[in-house]
Amino acid sequence: MSSMDHQSSENLETKEMDEGSLSISHGQEPNVHRVGVPPKQNIFKEFQATIKETFFSDDPLRSFKNQTKSRKFILGIESIFPILSWGRNYTLKNFRGDLIAGLTIASLCIPQDIGYAKLANLDPQYGLYSSFVPPLIYAVMGSSRDIAIGPVAVVSLLLGTLLQNEIDPIANPRDYRRLAFTATFFAGITQATLGVFRLGFLIDFLSHAAIVGFMGGAAITIALQQLKGFLGIKKFTKKTDVISVMQSVFSSAHHGWNWQTIVIGASFLTFLLFARYIGKKNKKLFWVSAIAPLISVILSTFFVYITRADKEGVAIVKHIEKGINPSSVKEIYWSGDYLGKGFRIGIVAGMIALTEAIAIGRTFASTKDYQLDGNREMVALGAMNVVGSMTSCYVATGSFSRSAVNFMAGCETAVSNIVMSIVVFLTLQFITPLFKYTPNAILSAIIISAVINLVDYQAAILIWKIDKFDFVACMGAFFGVFFASVEIGLLIAVSISFAKILLQVTRPRTAILGKIPTTTVYRNIQQYPEATKIPGVLIIRVDSAIYFSNSNYVKERILRWLVDEEEKIKGNYQTRIQFLIVDMSPVTDIDTSGIHALEELYRSLQKRGIQLVLANPGPVVIDKLHTSNFATLLGEDKIFLTVAEAVEYCSPKLAEDP
Amino acid sequence: MSSMDHQSSENLETKEMDEGSLSISHGQEPNVHRVGVPPKQNIFKEFQATIKETFFSDDPLRSFKNQTKSRKFILGIESIFPILSWGRNYTLKNFRGDLIAGLTIASLCIPQDIGYAKLANLDPQYGLYSSFVPPLIYAVMGSSRDIAIGPVAVVSLLLGTLLQNEIDPIANPRDYRRLAFTATFFAGITQATLGVFRLGFLIDFLSHAAIVGFMGGAAITIALQQLKGFLGIKKFTKKTDVISVMQSVFSSAHHGWNWQTIVIGASFLTFLLFARYIGKKNKKLFWVSAIAPLISVILSTFFVYITRADKEGVAIVKHIEKGINPSSVKEIYWSGDYLGKGFRIGIVAGMIALTEAIAIGRTFASTKDYQLDGNREMVALGAMNVVGSMTSCYVATGSFSRSAVNFMAGCETAVSNIVMSIVVFLTLQFITPLFKYTPNAILSAIIISAVINLVDYQAAILIWKIDKFDFVACMGAFFGVFFASVEIGLLIAVSISFAKILLQVTRPRTAILGKIPTTTVYRNIQQYPEATKIPGVLIIRVDSAIYFSNSNYVKERILRWLVDEEEKIKGNYQTRIQFLIVDMSPVTDIDTSGIHALEELYRSLQKRGIQLVLANPGPVVIDKLHTSNFATLLGEDKIFLTVAEAVEYCSPKLAEDP
Repeated sequence: MSSMDHQSSENLETKEMDEGSLSISHGQEPNVHRVGVPPKQNIFKEFQATIKETFFSDDPLRSFKNQTKSRKFILGIESIFPILSWGRNYTLKNFRGDLIAGLTIASLCIPQDIGYAKLANLDPQYGLYSSFVPPLIYAVMGSSRDIAIGPVAVVSLLLGTLLQNEIDPIANPRDYRRLAFTATFFAGITQATLGVFRLGFLIDFLSHAAIVGFMGGAAITIALQQLKGFLGIKKFTKKTDVISVMQSVFSSAHHGWNWQTIVIGASFLTFLLFARYIGKKNKKLFWVSAIAPLISVILSTFFVYITRADKEGVAIVKHIEKGINPSSVKEIYWSGDYLGKGFRIGIVAGMIALTEAIAIGRTFASTKDYQLDGNREMVALGAMNVVGSMTSCYVATGSFSRSAVNFMAGCETAVSNIVMSIVVFLTLQFITPLFKYTPNAILSAIIISAVINLVDYQAAILIWKIDKFDFVACMGAFFGVFFASVEIGLLIAVSISFAKILLQVTRPRTAILGKIPTTTVYRNIQQYPEATKIPGVLIIRVDSAIYFSNSNYVKERILRWLVDEEEKIKGNYQTRIQFLIVDMSPVTDIDTSGIHALEELYRSLQKRGIQLVLANPGPVVIDKLHTSNFATLLGEDKIFLTVAEAVEYCSPKLAEDP
Repeated sequence: MSSMDHQSSENLETKEMDEGSLSISHGQEPNVHRVGVPPKQNIFKEFQATIKETFFSDDPLRSFKNQTKSRKFILGIESIFPILSWGRNYTLKNFRGDLIAGLTIASLCIPQDIGYAKLANLDPQYGLYSSFVPPLIYAVMGSSRDIAIGPVAVVSLLLGTLLQNEIDPIANPRDYRRLAFTATFFAGITQATLGVFRLGFLIDFLSHAAIVGFMGGAAITIALQQLKGFLGIKKFTKKTDVISVMQSVFSSAHHGWNWQTIVIGASFLTFLLFARYIGKKNKKLFWVSAIAPLISVILSTFFVYITRADKEGVAIVKHIEKGINPSSVKEIYWSGDYLGKGFRIGIVAGMIALTEAIAIGRTFASTKDYQLDGNREMVALGAMNVVGSMTSCYVATGSFSRSAVNFMAGCETAVSNIVMSIVVFLTLQFITPLFKYTPNAILSAIIISAVINLVDYQAAILIWKIDKFDFVACMGAFFGVFFASVEIGLLIAVSISFAKILLQVTRPRTAILGKIPTTTVYRNIQQYPEATKIPGVLIIRVDSAIYFSNSNYVKERILRWLVDEEEKIKGNYQTRIQFLIVDMSPVTDIDTSGIHALEELYRSLQKRGIQLVLANPGPVVIDKLHTSNFATLLGEDKIFLTVAEAVEYCSPKLAEDP
């Protein structure tokens, strides 16, 4: 308390009377405000608060407070099965909306499912199976009202790629299918586990930009894969990168293409794209684009049946197993080598499926302004895939295109998924034989027109404008998928996302502050060129918590600012820097490494005859400065509430000096 | 620009004249300051600045600026071999200091080296080899003046543990040695690569707390390992965890212990600890503790030789190869299975060795106040280990204990390492046969007394006081090493360090601000209980950059603050919240996900009839708010320089409302 001598202790006492709640007293200039030290917290409470903020930041038990036991039990059941809660208020008006929406998405999902199953190298019925059981489970457990559940293009492609690295789907279809169910099981387990342990924030590590790039790349890859069916090529590469695919396409140009297939495919693709255009142009006509796929299937199947074009080389679906999902509990590998492989593939596929579903759920929840509990959603999605894996389904999730249609068709609740599910059930029971003559080219055309939506070039342009680093992540993921494979693209997306986080924590920004004329406000002089520096005083703001990952950098960066500044005023003894004020406002936390860095900074400055002054440390920081005794080392009178007060403290002292 | 009507445009024009450098004009209240938009930067320049700040934050080419070409060449050579630069000013006075220091650390290192080689499961001469070549290389390339180079306890133990997982050192000593050289080679390559590519900041990811715990655990593990030599046990476990070791010790208590060995060991350990106590008590007598090990070795060797105690079962060194390092270029595995294993082990050992050397270098550099270029140090350490791997050395690095002695003995430059190296050379050439009768118990006693220094319980107490999370990391690493193995301990240390970073970026702090009486300063009401809220206005500060990893959390957290606050004032219509001011001062950056989160926040608030107002966005943020058009969506007149001005804007509007 070395400053006690040059201050009016009388004044201090009055202040203490006013602010009796603070017990720690330290030296203060008369007109200067003290920096508050928050009351000491119990360690247990502190720990509890951290845990709560990390894992229960959404306060999920809020509604359980002050309730009777039986009420708590009912609330608990309702929180697992939200249908019990919203089902009670379900009206006929709701049902009208859900019925129309459900029929619309059913008409869209049936042809898509058959195509997506092919992307996953599975027989067409498995796509339909996955649109029957999972939506039912989701409807009773999920909390999104707009999401449409079923197989999706990107996950199907990813699963197909990862699975065929392990087992050849043509040579060994049974084992391949078994591995697919195993992967689906673990995808579900992964999703549910993340939800139960409230680790949902892990999916936030895939940045929006990376997802845009990955989705775009995957969409184009999927579209290119469709050239096989679209051009009627029989020998086609198993690789998914653009170069292999294009080689396959052109090497078969002379004898491998089938013109009848191309004619059918091209005319219906034109029809689908036109329908899509109409739907986009006039939002009320969205149903045109929604039912166009089903119409295409019906028309083209009828056409092929009449003309027997399949005898001319037009590839057709040929056979879809009739009847609903058989049990597949015994198909899952519960032991052996494939258990581990299925586990690994399941984790990756599960995470990607989760990312897609949560993104969709959040988008529509924010549009309709209702709350969506991410962790509960994960449990629902996980449960649905675990049950799915036992009933011959592969990984299902929320579909971008079908959810949008669901929303526009006026769905009210998850009942639309139940309606869709019933339609799929009826299809499996009665209609599948009719798909025999459906040409593959139509399925390809439907998939192409569906995945085009995933290429969100406008989002990419916006990303370019806002953040160049994000754009690099976006393009990295895009080109990774495009030129290599979905796995490589995903790896690039995750790596770049992570690199950005590392950059954030190792290289925080620092800024030189100046005084904005006619105010007592100090701001970054780069942003406010009119802000003026105070001669003899250097004011630096550190823009991050000071942790082990950046403490050394922060210290060295501050010293470098000092050297730069000293070089500028070289020789001019009058403006020699005598005070270094560190504005700690943005420094929300500091750890032991950070305290050490401050100590080293203090010593370095001392050797140069410069005084270190701190401004506005936050509650956690001031507490740690005290417990580590750094506040005493520095002098408690050198810690101020604002930069302005710190400057006021320095200015008279500057005058005193020679 | 909806606010243009209710403002004096005359005033605006005057302001624009004053601040002509800013080109974007937007609506302003008369007495309100504009938020500066920094001038648009060239993309290339922006990118360049990021790269520079990330990899060249220390501005290594500063001294190259404005120099002639030949001068630049000389500076380049000098930057690789700093000895050329400081060597020119080397004086006889410097040499006196270095000579004494060099002789002191040599006396300390010779017995330590023999013991440490045993920890690495290598013959004793390899420890001495590693104290001959690497210090010479370091002396010409390194820039620390105080570090003492050679084998160290923790790295020896780590290397020994990792290597014996692959090859049994007793059954197959030759292959084991070859793998050791391979690992050393890749350790050097790893270190040099990190330096050349300026990735030195990667070692900052091992937090100070984790290192304290890891070192403490490793020290105790090493001390426990010495019980073998100390008690004269012949059959000893290969595991390093405390339970296995204690089982080994007690199962051999009846017939495996050798009382002569224990007597010799215990008496000399007492002597060593007493010498250490004297050295600590009186800093001037530090040399007592420094030469005590050598004295112990000489006395005990002589004693055993006289009494022929080795015939009574006292284990002795027996044989140390005479002569200097043979070449081991051909011993390194350049292909095959062991190449990959050596590579992996080398990376781990190299990183740990680097962490230790850099920590020592930084400590002494800051004590003597000279600059240490971390990346250049890494290149020097890497080069020294690469050369070492080809001359029969295993991983060498800076030793904590010997560097401290070096410093206290008054070393001036790296010449003390050269002196030590020469002494080791003479020892290898002439004296090694004399070590024949040195009892192993003495080496154990020397190692025990050396590693005790690594148990830094005072640091652990300080960590407990400052940061509880850091303490968990510290204890995790400690108990990991103690109860499992060095690898597990290391893994725990790295994982907890990483978890902390993830926590930092996913769960940033937010705070409710209140006005500090008689000022216009707004501060966290938790820290300043006297701060008062403004009725009808909620002020929230977000304490972190808003990135994809936390954007969703930040949005939801702000909405939850709002709900909490609304609950508190329920029913009281007069104080209904009408404005939400977000203080963006600490928000240094925002990415596309962050912008989306702000948009969603804006929409949610709009639906509740609450206006969103921003205060003090930084240069990068305001730029992105403009390019993304969020500033237009929000209304540019709702962005203010300070919270006080934002409140001023809201207050009259509150009065207008019913």
